[in-house]
Amino acid sequence: MLNQEKKQEQNLPEYDLERLRKQMEFIREIDKEKQIFRQSYVSDGTRKENDAEHAWHMAIMTFLLSEYANEEIDVLKTIRMILIHDIVEIDAGDTYAYDDAAKSTQREREEKAADRLFGILPEDQAVELRALWEEFEAGETKEARFARTMDNVQPLLLNDAAKGKAWEEHQVPLSKILKRNQRTAKGSQALWEYSRDEMIRKNVEAGHIIPDVEL
Amino acid sequence: MLNQEKKQEQNLPEYDLERLRKQMEFIREIDKEKQIFRQSYVSDGTRKENDAEHAWHMAIMTFLLSEYANEEIDVLKTIRMILIHDIVEIDAGDTYAYDDAAKSTQREREEKAADRLFGILPEDQAVELRALWEEFEAGETKEARFARTMDNVQPLLLNDAAKGKAWEEHQVPLSKILKRNQRTAKGSQALWEYSRDEMIRKNVEAGHIIPDVEL
Repeated sequence: MLNQEKKQEQNLPEYDLERLRKQMEFIREIDKEKQIFRQSYVSDGTRKENDAEHAWHMAIMTFLLSEYANEEIDVLKTIRMILIHDIVEIDAGDTYAYDDAAKSTQREREEKAADRLFGILPEDQAVELRALWEEFEAGETKEARFARTMDNVQPLLLNDAAKGKAWEEHQVPLSKILKRNQRTAKGSQALWEYSRDEMIRKNVEAGHIIPDVEL
Repeated sequence: MLNQEKKQEQNLPEYDLERLRKQMEFIREIDKEKQIFRQSYVSDGTRKENDAEHAWHMAIMTFLLSEYANEEIDVLKTIRMILIHDIVEIDAGDTYAYDDAAKSTQREREEKAADRLFGILPEDQAVELRALWEEFEAGETKEARFARTMDNVQPLLLNDAAKGKAWEEHQVPLSKILKRNQRTAKGSQALWEYSRDEMIRKNVEAGHIIPDVEL
């Protein structure tokens, strides 16, 4: 169809085949994220959600809800961070937020995974994505704070939709949910208040969350 | 934790609870996209991929591969378009690219779905997302062209990874794959050439695609 001559006529740039192969290898490798299942159920409660679905959901939430960020955020940067934030789980697995033993080895497992996975990319993009992931993990920039708010609000929303199924299965007490969410307001005060008042409180009242502390 | 007084001290803005409820209702409704399965298999061939996973994969591809767009694109706009491009399938279902009968009623089914689904959002965002979806469908802006290139290249990549499983199941001839991809080069000449030379040709040679025409 298109040949070298025609390409030169149209002034289309040549591309670096080795670079593109590395990018495509990474894109193919991260397909495995669709097999990493989380503890949250999808909204009808029929099955658990995987990391790729979770990231897609959070990315849409980000552009619909960025108006509620405490400080104005760079939406593209936040979405990029969100899309890749769980890629390390391809090697390191999902660590349930309320599993203390697994949490103690999480950082080490995830560092190693980041080395291998981002290392598949061409150097410039490997460095860029690694830095984005580290920024998310540290949670100190306004974009990382908002991304982490999304990471907390999205499962609250799913758990509420699934009538607290995952909370009940794990017998999660309110104190743990509040501890997990102690930084949710850092990205968005409004979204934390909404989550607390319209999702958490409702599920405490319905008996889906054990009320071991005051809300 | 935070009360009205404290909020006023910090000068945090009040928010419109009715607006946020509509946004959250939409976010909850689109969770159903995780149950819309496509014809492509995930890369290990164990199960089919759903629309949410497909959109997540395309969105990451977009920011990694935007350097190959024929014209410089607005990456955030393209990603937003991609993230929502299949939401109408919640009501209209997935229409397989090689199913001619289903394709004849696709537009009507999807218009109706767009009315209902985007209509859940507050008016300004309903209009914005509907316009983004229409732009993707029309495929005439540079962002829409690139998004559609992603929509074509991503299943080629998965089919190649899964050793042509979906192509073999549906006995897809090369002529249909080329017809489906006749506009893939419009978004990116480089990515079309790569797909043709490194994915399609390989699968013709391996006998996964019926060679009814010349490549």
